[in-house]
Amino acid sequence: MSNHKVAVFRKEHFNAAHRLYNPAWTDEQNREVFGKCSNPNYHGHNYDLEVRVAGVPDPRTGYVLDMKILSDIIGEYVLEPFDHKNLNLDTDYFKNLNPTAENIVVVIYDILRARIDQALDLRVRLYETERNFVEYPA
Amino acid sequence: MSNHKVAVFRKEHFNAAHRLYNPAWTDEQNREVFGKCSNPNYHGHNYDLEVRVAGVPDPRTGYVLDMKILSDIIGEYVLEPFDHKNLNLDTDYFKNLNPTAENIVVVIYDILRARIDQALDLRVRLYETERNFVEYPA
Amino acid sequence: MSNHKVAVFRKEHFNAAHRLYNPAWTDEQNREVFGKCSNPNYHGHNYDLEVRVAGVPDPRTGYVLDMKILSDIIGEYVLEPFDHKNLNLDTDYFKNLNPTAENIVVVIYDILRARIDQALDLRVRLYETERNFVEYPA
Amino acid sequence: MSNHKVAVFRKEHFNAAHRLYNPAWTDEQNREVFGKCSNPNYHGHNYDLEVRVAGVPDPRTGYVLDMKILSDIIGEYVLEPFDHKNLNLDTDYFKNLNPTAENIVVVIYDILRARIDQALDLRVRLYETERNFVEYPA
Amino acid sequence: MSNHKVAVFRKEHFNAAHRLYNPAWTDEQNREVFGKCSNPNYHGHNYDLEVRVAGVPDPRTGYVLDMKILSDIIGEYVLEPFDHKNLNLDTDYFKNLNPTAENIVVVIYDILRARIDQALDLRVRLYETERNFVEYPA
Amino acid sequence: MSNHKVAVFRKEHFNAAHRLYNPAWTDEQNREVFGKCSNPNYHGHNYDLEVRVAGVPDPRTGYVLDMKILSDIIGEYVLEPFDHKNLNLDTDYFKNLNPTAENIVVVIYDILRARIDQALDLRVRLYETERNFVEYPA
Repeated sequence: MSNHKVAVFRKEHFNAAHRLYNPAWTDEQNREVFGKCSNPNYHGHNYDLEVRVAGVPDPRTGYVLDMKILSDIIGEYVLEPFDHKNLNLDTDYFKNLNPTAENIVVVIYDILRARIDQALDLRVRLYETERNFVEYPA
Repeated sequence: MSNHKVAVFRKEHFNAAHRLYNPAWTDEQNREVFGKCSNPNYHGHNYDLEVRVAGVPDPRTGYVLDMKILSDIIGEYVLEPFDHKNLNLDTDYFKNLNPTAENIVVVIYDILRARIDQALDLRVRLYETERNFVEYPA
Repeated sequence: MSNHKVAVFRKEHFNAAHRLYNPAWTDEQNREVFGKCSNPNYHGHNYDLEVRVAGVPDPRTGYVLDMKILSDIIGEYVLEPFDHKNLNLDTDYFKNLNPTAENIVVVIYDILRARIDQALDLRVRLYETERNFVEYPA
Repeated sequence: MSNHKVAVFRKEHFNAAHRLYNPAWTDEQNREVFGKCSNPNYHGHNYDLEVRVAGVPDPRTGYVLDMKILSDIIGEYVLEPFDHKNLNLDTDYFKNLNPTAENIVVVIYDILRARIDQALDLRVRLYETERNFVEYPA
Repeated sequence: MSNHKVAVFRKEHFNAAHRLYNPAWTDEQNREVFGKCSNPNYHGHNYDLEVRVAGVPDPRTGYVLDMKILSDIIGEYVLEPFDHKNLNLDTDYFKNLNPTAENIVVVIYDILRARIDQALDLRVRLYETERNFVEYPA
Repeated sequence: MSNHKVAVFRKEHFNAAHRLYNPAWTDEQNREVFGKCSNPNYHGHNYDLEVRVAGVPDPRTGYVLDMKILSDIIGEYVLEPFDHKNLNLDTDYFKNLNPTAENIVVVIYDILRARIDQALDLRVRLYETERNFVEYPA
């Protein structure tokens, strides 16, 4: 029964401020492209993060990966640096990278990919709002 | 970081009336197959629509596609003709096509596919109720 | 521990078509006041119904009211006449009463009030959409 | 049937940045009391706003208050100044008032109370996250 | 602005097993009244707990009660004894009290009432499922 | 329009008790690996089940598969044996198989696969809580 891959999903969340901004552009160009998302004083979101890991369950435990271990990895490497932070100012990841949902989800994927067994598939979904969300890899 | 495909999702909704009905059948056959969904005076739903577009983010914006543009396309070509309408009577799409969730989602896919850059992947999910929903392509 | 009132809630749902319409007005007046909600061919909703009954739990059962009994009452007297129906055409309640959420919730309250022990408090909440809902009595 | 009060609810949302901060205290005191919520570079939330208005429905329309009108009032006087803004820096309301959920909900209540018919009851609920929310008046 | 009462809500959850059972009755009577909820080997739920505390916000903090403190009280006195437990066998509260949602919510209220400032109002809502929930006091 | 595959989804739920336990291990080993999930007196969950079936809609009905038929199959073969049961004690499936979410979802897949037309694709998602869920095949 356990010869085939099962996917497990863990949902976490963090609250952060950000603004969309391309430093190569003038303020006017930024406003034109990013609208109110480019407000210089920042705005923010409750980000919901859904991490999917797929693999063959270990026959001794029936687990693909202990959800507590996955939750701890997400907590230490994603929530700790991102939660209740300003993504543009308080993290190194978005010093030179525009913190769109697309870019944030790729950053989180890269962080987690380095810390989860390469034998396991990884996919990350990030909800910026209930109506706007992203997934990587697509 | 932006060499790979990211999927972006936008959720919209519309409220519509419909009935399930095959004009090639008698009323009794329709009742037998479609049950209360075939009520001649129609019933209705709050349809939740989830549109997924996948592609490589533009390095200048960090966007696969500006969600505002996607939302405007859905608004003009799907919500405008479908919201607060009777799908059987008020649209041309279901004059000769039974408005099951399966058929509606394919119609919406075709409408959007014609208006979204062919380089981008498209997938549409439609919730008829919280417990019944469909996705195309599968 | 059971000398005081506890409230119990039961959630049910039904899917129906309706249109907002005041027969004393011209079509133009109806359009002006009710907008697209007055579309002559109807539109529809997934109505979520939340029934609250409050009283002192029976010390033998620990129940204010058996949720199965409450669910059966709602099923027989509300879902049966309303689900997969056209509220304007298929029910007697809205022949001469505009089926706004406000009027529907009062009708449902009256139906249930007549069938639930008068010693128990009753309140009904009706969601027309996730963003528009009503409650009676206020 | 329309002699009694019905409550109508409208849900809206806005995304904003804020930080908790009492200017009468040292930075250390602020950190001690408000923890990571006091991060000097701000963090943010998707605020969900639920406005409840209660009154006797107008017998001609069956409405307590046209939800479109309520939505427009919220849009103009709450969403316009708060959405995609920094509550501490971009609004006058929180120049000298700590933007806790409690204080924000009272500010929003006061804004709306001045613009909604005094014959109608008003109550406002504000979700800062799915797990932390407030209501005024209690 | 802070002379009036504001209500703050905190949502927590726990997963537990239980069975409904009145020891004064025969097994047959229990089956008749409680149906499958009386299964001798237990069944279980994801209980969602919503604690409401109302009072006048402290003008120095803008808090009615620090949500972290409330969360810690719920964690220590409710989640610790109830989460991942069998309510009938692993707690003292339901040795002689049938663990219906009504009885559980009153027990939780009593636990919290003893540990929250008497100047603050308290109300507890408990979701046994999305469709069945209770509130105390009513 | 109906030459291509559409996926249809049906959501159902059941409430059950379980404990995680490997009989080849000592109690101490079980506690170490499974923590509070190994509580000998069981705990429980509201399991949400999402069944996805994909195929080409029948041009006469516009259905991939009548949702009522799918719901009946799930009801008879999954909900009947699992709902309000102790998965370890009351079912044969988990006598010698640890009822982790991963193992449960594969069991449910196998049950349904045997009863749904082989021409149709099948995938099952199981939510143990809102934050932990699994999918098979991955």
